[in-house]
Amino acid sequence: MPNTKFLLAEDRIPTTWYNVIPDLPGGLPPMLHPGTKEPITEADLEPLFPAELIAQEFSTDREVDIPGAVIDIYRQWRPAPLIRARRLEQALDTPARIYFKYEGVSPAGSHKPNTAVPQAYYNKRAGVERLITETGAGQWGSSLALACSYFGLACEVYMVKVSYQQKPYRRGLMETFGASVTASPSELTAAGRAALAADPDSTGSLGLAISEAVEVAAASGGSAKYALGSVLNHVLMHQTIIGQEALLQMELADDYPDIVIGAAGGGSNFGGLALPFLREQLGGGRSVRAIAVEPSSCPTMTKGGYEYDFGDTAGLTPLTKMHTLGHDFVPPGIHAGGLRYHGMAPIISALKEADLLEARAVPQTACFEAGVTFARNEGIVPAPESTHAVRAAIDEALKAKEEGAERSILFTLSGHGHFDMQAYIDYFAGKLQD
Amino acid sequence: MPNTKFLLAEDRIPTTWYNVIPDLPGGLPPMLHPGTKEPITEADLEPLFPAELIAQEFSTDREVDIPGAVIDIYRQWRPAPLIRARRLEQALDTPARIYFKYEGVSPAGSHKPNTAVPQAYYNKRAGVERLITETGAGQWGSSLALACSYFGLACEVYMVKVSYQQKPYRRGLMETFGASVTASPSELTAAGRAALAADPDSTGSLGLAISEAVEVAAASGGSAKYALGSVLNHVLMHQTIIGQEALLQMELADDYPDIVIGAAGGGSNFGGLALPFLREQLGGGRSVRAIAVEPSSCPTMTKGGYEYDFGDTAGLTPLTKMHTLGHDFVPPGIHAGGLRYHGMAPIISALKEADLLEARAVPQTACFEAGVTFARNEGIVPAPESTHAVRAAIDEALKAKEEGAERSILFTLSGHGHFDMQAYIDYFAGKLQD
Ligand SMILES: Cc1ncc(COP(=O)(O)O)c(C=O)c1O
Ligand SMILES: Cc1ncc(COP(=O)(O)O)c(C=O)c1O
Repeated sequence: MPNTKFLLAEDRIPTTWYNVIPDLPGGLPPMLHPGTKEPITEADLEPLFPAELIAQEFSTDREVDIPGAVIDIYRQWRPAPLIRARRLEQALDTPARIYFKYEGVSPAGSHKPNTAVPQAYYNKRAGVERLITETGAGQWGSSLALACSYFGLACEVYMVKVSYQQKPYRRGLMETFGASVTASPSELTAAGRAALAADPDSTGSLGLAISEAVEVAAASGGSAKYALGSVLNHVLMHQTIIGQEALLQMELADDYPDIVIGAAGGGSNFGGLALPFLREQLGGGRSVRAIAVEPSSCPTMTKGGYEYDFGDTAGLTPLTKMHTLGHDFVPPGIHAGGLRYHGMAPIISALKEADLLEARAVPQTACFEAGVTFARNEGIVPAPESTHAVRAAIDEALKAKEEGAERSILFTLSGHGHFDMQAYIDYFAGKLQD
Repeated sequence: MPNTKFLLAEDRIPTTWYNVIPDLPGGLPPMLHPGTKEPITEADLEPLFPAELIAQEFSTDREVDIPGAVIDIYRQWRPAPLIRARRLEQALDTPARIYFKYEGVSPAGSHKPNTAVPQAYYNKRAGVERLITETGAGQWGSSLALACSYFGLACEVYMVKVSYQQKPYRRGLMETFGASVTASPSELTAAGRAALAADPDSTGSLGLAISEAVEVAAASGGSAKYALGSVLNHVLMHQTIIGQEALLQMELADDYPDIVIGAAGGGSNFGGLALPFLREQLGGGRSVRAIAVEPSSCPTMTKGGYEYDFGDTAGLTPLTKMHTLGHDFVPPGIHAGGLRYHGMAPIISALKEADLLEARAVPQTACFEAGVTFARNEGIVPAPESTHAVRAAIDEALKAKEEGAERSILFTLSGHGHFDMQAYIDYFAGKLQD
């Protein structure tokens, strides 16, 4: 019987991350200072990040060593399995071979710890005592909480108020890992107070929570730094461990993907899978169709402009050139909280402009339908974010069937939906809107 | 760097289950018919179970083949990892080596699918259309729902009403897998109506939900059968896949446990790990201390008598000789719902009488304390049931430290706590009672 799972031994965890920047056609437009509008320097970022992460953000090295202490933690769940979705293939009666890289095996349930762990590590090494961050649905907050507990750092999470109220269990998870969680907007920051003054009933937004977290870190005098869970170059680089493992695992499966697919919020999950495959292509190896999937209600890549914009609502962050719906765009309250972001990683945006990836927008009910099909065949209930990749993978498999074409499809199942069951309940009750 | 996880390839999934009955000193007292009090025959069980499961229940073969169709589903997550808890060891500063077999990687999040899958398979093969069962906290119900979705069987779950109300997400999970869920006591059965007549506000109990499920299956005329998630011989046998894999994995780790530990509700999780190790011992191999851990508020083995009793409240099931607190015992509402059962598997009870295992009762706050320590070091939030094993493992590791003794400790982490975060929230809020 051929294998269903393609597992790698721990000693095959990649020892370097892949930095795509030197391979980007045309390079990456510089970040600009929010005040001067001049290209920022490493020094400009010092209030927010430790030196090693800043160096990574600007690095033009193609490969960056993964510290041993980080690998020792990755070992707890990595290499993450690559699984052939044989039952789903049968149910779809498709000639396509469908594989998924399952990042939900991480302790926080998503790909986010891949970057949370090194971020906590570099901060710890730099003598930082507290990490401050924001979280929407809670995947990133719980990942950073976990990483901080590994390294003995305090962790403070500004959680978008609507999620804080609707997702007490994600909050419970962060607290179990030892973090403190504050509903955003809060009275603790100028940005929060301004938002509450404008609207005392504000339920918050990710952009606003970022403003709060950045403000607290910047004002700490160095004892606290800020951590971001997506978008930035160093975050995408950390996530390339996904695709690098997948390359080895596709070899084990004696196959190679024609198509790679990932849900894209800020772009790190999609990039994590796709970048190592694009590297092969750019280096003259096999080419691959890379499909980044976003919600049609927050169509950053498919409808947003490619321009300089802020990462947060208050305009405290540097300006980055990216696909954006505008930093004051407030996305509708879809369940895929991790995809409700107005911008997109500069790296992913640049690849899109260079026609090295396809962007696709899908409506949420079609995603949940795909998620339920996946759950009933593969057993795993996908996170709402991940259902976007499942939808695209199923659509590609059905297209292969229509065309009678054998085809190999690989997607990241970026997380499980154990903390998102309300979304499925609402879906079954017919309460979801597109 | 030595390994943290000990993984087996799929082709090393054991191909047989281990049946301990022929190795039980003194054998197993027969089940008695609830009416006649005579030993029951295979025919007596036919209204409830398909022939192949009945044959397994009475089997005296030491090894029973696992059907290929079952192994094909096991492959989706099995072999389950065996993990060395290195960070926990460091945190405890113990000379003990601590390993856990992590069953939370199954799609339903616990060890229960190990038996749900073969049960669904044998029923499907026998032409059964619907499986009826009960569930407390929902681990078993979601496992059977999953297994039924794999084999295209309808699944009806009677869920103890208090859990039905308090655990909408477990219910959502069952529904995502395609099951229908009814709060018990219900108006659909005589047992349920009697309970509601006696107390219209009854929040139910596991024993009562069993009565309802058994009644529905028995009255179906053969289209529906009943499925039980623990206690019975065939269930314990299916779970031995845990210990059989662990034996191979301890070999990979070049170690052998001095102590094996499992939380015991009906006994299948503990038995699943311990029986294959006891087999080695009974066959003249290395001996092992086997510790079954139960809640001090439901002390079946440590305080219950060893006598014939019913498995359910209404007295519809056969009588089995076991440790029991009485079939009308209503355990306090601790969060470890899977450990709130008045009886214990006859096999585990007989082993206890033969002094082949130790029973230990632990209070719930001490368990959650251990669960939080585990989560902050190993990243995984244990199910409330599983925290009982974590508590005992930590206590044994601390004892080893006190005694300055190197010692190898292995426990089953039978499930994750993703659907039990309210329990942790209550624990942090100081709301838990012992
Ligand atoms: C499960 C899951 N998948 C995908 C995403 C989107 O990730 P990214 O921002 O890296 O694109 C998120 C973000 O929170 C997530 O939680
Ligand atoms: C996670 C978990 N562990 C342990 C148990 C106890 O299992 P058993 O009845 O097999 O002893 C249960 C029962 O539901 C459970 O859900």
